[in-house]
Amino acid sequence: MAVYTDVAADELAEFLSQYDLGELLSYKGIAEGVENSNFLLHTSAGSFILTLYEKRVARGDLPFFLALMTHLASKGVNCPLPVKGRDGEALRELAGRPAAIINFLEGIWPRKPNVTQCAGVGQALAKMHLAGLNFAMSRANALSVSGWRPLFEAAAARADEVQPGLRVFLSDELDYLESGVWPKHLPEGVIHADLFPDNVFFLGDRLSGLIDFTFACNDMLAYDVAICLNAWCFEPDHAFNVTKARAFLNAYGRERRLSEAEQDTLPLLARGAAIRFLLTRLVDWLNVPPGALVKPKDPLEYVRKLRFHQSVNSVRDYGLSTSGLVV
Amino acid sequence: MAVYTDVAADELAEFLSQYDLGELLSYKGIAEGVENSNFLLHTSAGSFILTLYEKRVARGDLPFFLALMTHLASKGVNCPLPVKGRDGEALRELAGRPAAIINFLEGIWPRKPNVTQCAGVGQALAKMHLAGLNFAMSRANALSVSGWRPLFEAAAARADEVQPGLRVFLSDELDYLESGVWPKHLPEGVIHADLFPDNVFFLGDRLSGLIDFTFACNDMLAYDVAICLNAWCFEPDHAFNVTKARAFLNAYGRERRLSEAEQDTLPLLARGAAIRFLLTRLVDWLNVPPGALVKPKDPLEYVRKLRFHQSVNSVRDYGLSTSGLVV
Repeated sequence: MAVYTDVAADELAEFLSQYDLGELLSYKGIAEGVENSNFLLHTSAGSFILTLYEKRVARGDLPFFLALMTHLASKGVNCPLPVKGRDGEALRELAGRPAAIINFLEGIWPRKPNVTQCAGVGQALAKMHLAGLNFAMSRANALSVSGWRPLFEAAAARADEVQPGLRVFLSDELDYLESGVWPKHLPEGVIHADLFPDNVFFLGDRLSGLIDFTFACNDMLAYDVAICLNAWCFEPDHAFNVTKARAFLNAYGRERRLSEAEQDTLPLLARGAAIRFLLTRLVDWLNVPPGALVKPKDPLEYVRKLRFHQSVNSVRDYGLSTSGLVV
Repeated sequence: MAVYTDVAADELAEFLSQYDLGELLSYKGIAEGVENSNFLLHTSAGSFILTLYEKRVARGDLPFFLALMTHLASKGVNCPLPVKGRDGEALRELAGRPAAIINFLEGIWPRKPNVTQCAGVGQALAKMHLAGLNFAMSRANALSVSGWRPLFEAAAARADEVQPGLRVFLSDELDYLESGVWPKHLPEGVIHADLFPDNVFFLGDRLSGLIDFTFACNDMLAYDVAICLNAWCFEPDHAFNVTKARAFLNAYGRERRLSEAEQDTLPLLARGAAIRFLLTRLVDWLNVPPGALVKPKDPLEYVRKLRFHQSVNSVRDYGLSTSGLVV
C-alpha cells in the first residue's frame, strides 16, 4: 500500500509519447500493491494503470507476467491487458525502473467477501486455470515447499518476539511438510498464487477482474485452490467459514472438476499455503525499514489458519459433504 | 502522501446512496494530501474525489472550506466543486470521519515548475483573491505571526538535533517578526495559504485547477503572494530563481495590482512565510509517529529560503526592476 517512486510529469510525457494513448490528463499514485509503484492515468483514450516494478520483482520475470496477462485476456479472462507501444513492446523503462501500462479495470475489491463473491472467485480461478493450460512460457514457484526453509531461517531467531513458541511451531510444521508428504503428481499449470480479495474486483456481486499477476507461476492447480481457501474463507476473527468454502469449491468444481487425488491433498496444500504466507509476513514484520510507507500485515493471522488446517481430517471439513467429488 | 483510513465497499455504497452519482465503478486510495485520506472514485456519472478529513483538520472549519470552493467555482475559479447530496448537504460522515465529495479536476501538478507555470499560478492567485473578496464567511489564520511561537516552543528543545544553531536562529527571527514589524493594514481577503506546486494542476502549461483549500483563511492577500514566492521561485538546490519570481509577480500584478505598501512589505512577508513552513515542517520532522505512512518534508529547505529573504533589500530583489510598481 504505497507509492515508492514518484514520476515527474515531463518524464512521464516522454514515456507516453511511445504509445498511442492520446493526451495525458492526470496521474495519481494509488495506494494499492505492496510490491510496486502504481499510478492511475487518465488520458484522452481512457483510464490506465502504470506500474513501476520495484526491486522485489525480478526484471527477468516481467515478460512472463505481461505475456500471461495478454494470453489470459485473449482467452476471455477478465484481467488487465498490457498496452503495447508503437514498437510493439509492453515493457520499457521509466524513472530507472522497468515499467508497463495495462488497461484499467473498473471494479471494487471486497473488504468483506460474501458467499456469492466466494463462488465468483472459485469460478474465475478455474476458468483462469483452464485458460492458462496452453500458455507457452513457464516460471517456477520460488515460494513452494523448497522456498520456505530459507524464509524460516531468516526469521527464526526473532520469531518468538512475535509470539512465544512460534519458532518451534514453524520448525515442526516445516519438518512435516518437508518429510516427503508434499505432493508431486497433481495436475499442474499456471497459478495466480496471490489471489487475495484485494486482487479481485467486483461490480456488485459480479466479478469484473483478476489483477496483479506478479506471483503467477507454474505449480499444482490445487495449490491455488488452497491459497484461496486461506484468503477467502476465514472471517475477520479468523474462524473458518464453511459456507464460503463450500460455495468457492463447488463453483470451482463446476468449471474444472477436482480429481480425487487433488481433493484428498487439499488439507495438506492448505497447510502449505498457510505457512507460505505466514513466513513471508513474518519476515516482512521483522524487517520493516525505518520510515517505511508500508504497514506490514499481521503474520499471526496465519498461525491461526495453519492450526485450523492441521485439525482438518479431510476435504469434507471444507464443506464437501457427499461423494468426495465436487459436484 | 498517504491513505490513513480505508473504506469498506458496503460503507461507501451506503454513503453514495445519498447522492445522485450513479453506480460506483471503482475507488482507489490516492497518495496525495498529507492531512487527509483521499480516494479517486469512478462512477457512471464521472470521476470524483472523496475526502475523509483526518484529525488535523478541525471539523468546525469544514463548512468554510466547502462553501469557499463552491463560491470560488461559481466565480469562475478552476477549483473543485463540492458535490451536494440529495439533502442539499456536501458534508456528511463516513468511517467515523467527516467526509465530502468534490468533482475531479484533470491536470498534473508540476514537479519542476517552469517560468510559464509560475506566471500561470500568479495570474490564478490574483483571480482567486479577487473572486474571494465578496465571500461572506471568514476564518482566522491560525498559522500567522501569533501562531509561530507555540510551534517554536514545541520544537525548540530538539531543534539543534536537526541542525546545530537552529534554535537560536529561529528564536532570533521570531523575536524580530514579533517586535511590531509585522504589517497590520495591508489589504485582506481569503487566501489559499498553501498554494504549493502539488496544489496546482496544469495541462501542458495551461493551469487547469487549484486544489486543497484546507489551509484557506482570511489574511493579507500579499502574504499569499509571499508564500508562493517561497513555494514556486526556488530551484531544487534552493537557489532563488529571479526569472520565475518576476514572471509570477508580473502575472499577479496584471490581475490585481500590488500597492506600494504591499510591495515594500513583501520581503518581510516572505520571511514570515518561510518561518511558518519551517516551523510546521520542523514539528512534523521531530514527531514522526512509529509506523507513519507519511514521510516528513525536510525543514532545512526553509532555513535556506529564510536566509535568502533576510538578505533581500527590497522587492526589486524579487525581480521587479523599475518603478517599484508591478506593471
